[in-house]
Amino acid sequence: MKPSIPKGTRDFLPEQMSRRNYIFDTIKDVFLLYGFEQIETPAMETMQTLMGKYGEEGDKLLFRIQNSGEKASEAPEKGLRYDLTVPFARLVAQYRNDIHFPFKRFQIQPVWRADRPQKGRYREFYQCDVDIIGTNSLIAEMELIHIVEDVYHRFGINVVLKLNNRKILAGIAEYIGEPNRLIDITTAIDKTDKIGEEKVNAELIERGLSESAVQCLQPILRLSGSNRSKLCKLRELLAGSQTGLQGVQETEEIFDLCDASGADLNIELDLTLARGLNYYTGAIFEVKALDVEMGSITGGGRYDNLTGVFGMSGVSGVGISFGADRIYDVLTELDLFPADSLKGTQVLFASFGEEELKYALSCAASVRANGIRTEVYPEPAKIKKQMAYADAKHIPFVAIVGSEEIQNNTVTLKNMITGEQRQLPLQQLVETLKS
Amino acid sequence: MKPSIPKGTRDFLPEQMSRRNYIFDTIKDVFLLYGFEQIETPAMETMQTLMGKYGEEGDKLLFRIQNSGEKASEAPEKGLRYDLTVPFARLVAQYRNDIHFPFKRFQIQPVWRADRPQKGRYREFYQCDVDIIGTNSLIAEMELIHIVEDVYHRFGINVVLKLNNRKILAGIAEYIGEPNRLIDITTAIDKTDKIGEEKVNAELIERGLSESAVQCLQPILRLSGSNRSKLCKLRELLAGSQTGLQGVQETEEIFDLCDASGADLNIELDLTLARGLNYYTGAIFEVKALDVEMGSITGGGRYDNLTGVFGMSGVSGVGISFGADRIYDVLTELDLFPADSLKGTQVLFASFGEEELKYALSCAASVRANGIRTEVYPEPAKIKKQMAYADAKHIPFVAIVGSEEIQNNTVTLKNMITGEQRQLPLQQLVETLKS
Repeated sequence: MKPSIPKGTRDFLPEQMSRRNYIFDTIKDVFLLYGFEQIETPAMETMQTLMGKYGEEGDKLLFRIQNSGEKASEAPEKGLRYDLTVPFARLVAQYRNDIHFPFKRFQIQPVWRADRPQKGRYREFYQCDVDIIGTNSLIAEMELIHIVEDVYHRFGINVVLKLNNRKILAGIAEYIGEPNRLIDITTAIDKTDKIGEEKVNAELIERGLSESAVQCLQPILRLSGSNRSKLCKLRELLAGSQTGLQGVQETEEIFDLCDASGADLNIELDLTLARGLNYYTGAIFEVKALDVEMGSITGGGRYDNLTGVFGMSGVSGVGISFGADRIYDVLTELDLFPADSLKGTQVLFASFGEEELKYALSCAASVRANGIRTEVYPEPAKIKKQMAYADAKHIPFVAIVGSEEIQNNTVTLKNMITGEQRQLPLQQLVETLKS
Repeated sequence: MKPSIPKGTRDFLPEQMSRRNYIFDTIKDVFLLYGFEQIETPAMETMQTLMGKYGEEGDKLLFRIQNSGEKASEAPEKGLRYDLTVPFARLVAQYRNDIHFPFKRFQIQPVWRADRPQKGRYREFYQCDVDIIGTNSLIAEMELIHIVEDVYHRFGINVVLKLNNRKILAGIAEYIGEPNRLIDITTAIDKTDKIGEEKVNAELIERGLSESAVQCLQPILRLSGSNRSKLCKLRELLAGSQTGLQGVQETEEIFDLCDASGADLNIELDLTLARGLNYYTGAIFEVKALDVEMGSITGGGRYDNLTGVFGMSGVSGVGISFGADRIYDVLTELDLFPADSLKGTQVLFASFGEEELKYALSCAASVRANGIRTEVYPEPAKIKKQMAYADAKHIPFVAIVGSEEIQNNTVTLKNMITGEQRQLPLQQLVETLKS
């Protein structure tokens, strides 16, 4: 039997795992700095919780779990988590009496989708979601923008944050005379990046928009100038749409708050930004890396009624999700993983024989007591083999123990990068390794 | 629709989550200190990987995943991970050419079992496994004992580590004249703690052991005295069993290595310790907390052929698994969670109105720039409401901003524990919060 794993899933070996941990830890540190708290939900949810939340296509992509040895009547159908948003909404509704609002939560867990696997698309992948729920305040949007700034600053990735507002898009739909076609419009223009303007227009016609509406639409989406001047023009164009004006107002306030709080992120009001998901009702965001070709690496927006379907209405929230896999690819492509994101064992003890090995064990214990990550090669193998092990694990120092070292109460410390080696008394070993 | 989750699964709200993170982080820190590296495997494995590895009972408890929209021929059947050991064995065999042996890995991930849910038994729970594979050296056993010592020392939990060896048990089976009944014997005596010696004896008879064998067995299992004196007696008793003597020899060497390396753990050679799983072939371990009634909180042992079923034979390893849920219960019962395991937001800015809120935002940004976890209540709500929020989240300081504070370039800092409050210039705020 040839060992293998299901299509679209992955194993993470130590080197990848260290890099992934660097990503998760960096993101988590920033979330905590802003007062967000971590939660976890089960991998399985009832099908009742999952079904109908992700559109018809999404329903088909849910992984279902077979009931095992239970009667269907006592065990509701179950499926694997498809995203972190719906379980979060379920949790908020379920524990509404235990939660203190505004609730600032983050969640870093895998999700599963029965998508056809292809390059960069997996059936199991992690999401890193951060949401503030239970406030209408646009300070929440501002805070997420600061989080994006801080996270990508720490990664050293230059990004642009594209901002839009579903209410502005609704206003534009009214303006072009198609007030009931908002979803058709957002679904189509969301593809502009991928298929281009012409094909988007063709799709809009196909979806039943009038020729004149489509002709009217594109010049608005392509409004040029600074963010503030775009807002000015929109305020004129959307004068007849209360919703549209509210969207303009909200966007302006977000820019004001960002200025007041000293945000230094490259933000662009992009009217073609639509976000596929239909639960967004206000600001929407998407982040792209500037120095590399890659889709959106972070995205999200405001939703006004995510918990309504779970019996808790009138609760507004806003959230974003960081795409760990794409961030991994960007960091790899731009060679931005810091050297110490791989930091593992700092010193390996290698010994020439059984006696030396015992001596090494007691040395290692005292080195380790100083918080230094320490290994002892567990067999008196050939020194060459022990060195190869240190090399393979990128261990920077090897402490070699032979009979001479035991006699002198020393070790011979070899720097695996420079090749330099010298005999050291034990007391000096810890100091040398610490510096 | 009333929101709920599947039976036997759990949500973790922020407070529980912080405590769980304290457990995982502590364990992980110790693993890293000994040079173990983290890996992760997919939640789903093929049924071919999973089936037949956990006995007949285990096979029934596997959660199967329904294929979604794929032909059975192109998609092998899949199930959820039942433990971390089998996926680890599969991974070692699959990547044998990329892995450098001895391979010291740890893995902290959830597993799923379709067990009947009951108190303390869940259908989804985390395992924290640490293994050394690819060496016969008993230094590996010694290292795991040190890890147990370090982990429980950090937790402040007093424990006893019970040690036995499958080869000793095999020797005893030979000695009592039932050399082919090792599995019957281990399965039965493994229950001694739960059902008592008499019922174990009855079960042994039922399983086909002779009366005389059973009469002979118990006095050996109840050998008293120090670990070393038990080993002396066993060496005499098992003089006729080569396997038994090897077990005695191994156990003695483990004690010698522990002494040489300064291990300070309470270790007890317990001949009734059998461990249910049949893949163990050498040393076996189990750890119990001394000051609280609770089952085993850590357990493991040496296996000589875990990867054989995946086509890679002759690879010996040893590993243990920490039970996070039980450790959580022990820490709770003994009130051992350190206060700062709950450490979240350090200061909340509360403001009297819109203007104050904007001022608070810029203050908060500079406090946060000093690495202090900072929140701004996002609405100019009643101060009482903002205070209640700080209380609920256990935030130790609230920085209150009114018009006076803006004028003086200060904030009023309230210590939420002592109730004390005083006006501070902004420059002093960071220093006060840092100390």
